[in-house]
Amino acid sequence: MIKKVFVKKVQQSGKEISQKQDVVAIEEPLEINLKSNGGKIFPVSVTMRTPGNDEELAVGFLHTEAILFSRKNIEQEIPSNLGFNWITINLSENFDPNIEKLKRNFYTSSSCGVCGKESIEAIHQTRRIPAEIVDIEVNLETLFSLPEELYKVQKTFQSTGGIHAAAFFSTDGKLISYREDVGRHNALDKLIGAEFLKSSKEAFFLQENILLLSGRASFELLQKAAMAGIQMVCAIGAPSSLAIETAENFGITLIGFLKNGSFNIYTNAERVKNLG
Amino acid sequence: MIKKVFVKKVQQSGKEISQKQDVVAIEEPLEINLKSNGGKIFPVSVTMRTPGNDEELAVGFLHTEAILFSRKNIEQEIPSNLGFNWITINLSENFDPNIEKLKRNFYTSSSCGVCGKESIEAIHQTRRIPAEIVDIEVNLETLFSLPEELYKVQKTFQSTGGIHAAAFFSTDGKLISYREDVGRHNALDKLIGAEFLKSSKEAFFLQENILLLSGRASFELLQKAAMAGIQMVCAIGAPSSLAIETAENFGITLIGFLKNGSFNIYTNAERVKNLG
Repeated sequence: MIKKVFVKKVQQSGKEISQKQDVVAIEEPLEINLKSNGGKIFPVSVTMRTPGNDEELAVGFLHTEAILFSRKNIEQEIPSNLGFNWITINLSENFDPNIEKLKRNFYTSSSCGVCGKESIEAIHQTRRIPAEIVDIEVNLETLFSLPEELYKVQKTFQSTGGIHAAAFFSTDGKLISYREDVGRHNALDKLIGAEFLKSSKEAFFLQENILLLSGRASFELLQKAAMAGIQMVCAIGAPSSLAIETAENFGITLIGFLKNGSFNIYTNAERVKNLG
Repeated sequence: MIKKVFVKKVQQSGKEISQKQDVVAIEEPLEINLKSNGGKIFPVSVTMRTPGNDEELAVGFLHTEAILFSRKNIEQEIPSNLGFNWITINLSENFDPNIEKLKRNFYTSSSCGVCGKESIEAIHQTRRIPAEIVDIEVNLETLFSLPEELYKVQKTFQSTGGIHAAAFFSTDGKLISYREDVGRHNALDKLIGAEFLKSSKEAFFLQENILLLSGRASFELLQKAAMAGIQMVCAIGAPSSLAIETAENFGITLIGFLKNGSFNIYTNAERVKNLG
């Protein structure tokens, strides 16, 4: 499923800037629930997914998590959740997994992005606005130079081809730090954590750092950026619909497809200087 | 952090096959714990990460999850967890977040891969071996043809650039089905779930399907494949160290970097016909 968005497309050659319609992949949370014989409903998991085939997603997840082993474990009818972000799978009468035991095997985690809308709410509630907001401005040329600067230092990717990176740059394009990990959320947590450990501020905020992501921009990465007070996020890959919405909600400038001499601006373009 | 592995490298041109040493990114679980003033330890999350900078990862995660707001919230000394897959961050004396309340905000989820070793154990325990094991064999030429077949039908990626795909092929290279999602684990759950819903078997197993992944192969994708009884997994991107170990443990043939007329075989090469 895709969503249409308006973007500013910026080309390095001739600095052509155009407003155009583009499409992004939709990202929304899905809450998967199990309904036992006794009629009790257990929430099992929340995943950030592209809507569509949600019944398949729910039973595929429940099978690969060793809860369901056969089609016969669930009722013939799978309730449709058309247009909703939750689904309940009904266990068949003769199937009774030890759900309490199963629940203990599920680790709590939010690294999959947890529940989009509620998390956005949570950031609003818990984010402490610093007394002094430092706004930033960045030159077009600086933005075009970032991927090459990251590439110069990203050693593990070059050797394994299997690592995500996240990097901080100053507004004049100097590399401040970068971290790598098999998980893109971990690379960002490490990057933010390193600055956090060095900071002596009462309320930690990274207002002046540009964040560069080596891959795609999903909701959870924008959520983390928002919590850290980051005002500009650049991704070499594509953003999701919910990443764009989160950037809008928090006044973050979101740039995508920053590669091969062009990029798209999705939100808050005013921080990019010399635009048209 | 990287790990050296031996791979069989297969080239389409001239069908040259060589045994060579290669490097893969290390993937291991990290359990993040918080220690309160009273000395009580709370497990907060388990994430699959590349070891290194674990202190940064832990505090970055705790900050972006709105638990820590300042360096002063934690003790000056961060305990090192050199060589271990767990870390405990000590809260400072004058900082007392409502951890019980926080815990309710963490959704249970295993889509981040949960705890590697324990999950591998869990698959062993819960996987039911079918009465009849159908072994499969695949031609070299068939393997080279798979990415192009997937590319032909992968519409959303082409329009948005932001979607992962997973596809099933028969052993003679016919596309059976494919699914797309912003999350690679979701694409695979949907793909497996679709077959699960159609199956009338007492114990669901997909022994004869080749799985093709559009991106990288991580532990969680191999875990899901193992649960579904899949015997051959091909990734267009790189595998992680734990993906290779999981493939070894479950007798899965794991192929990586399947693109541009070559691929690497990491495990169980005997299912690929005409190899040297």
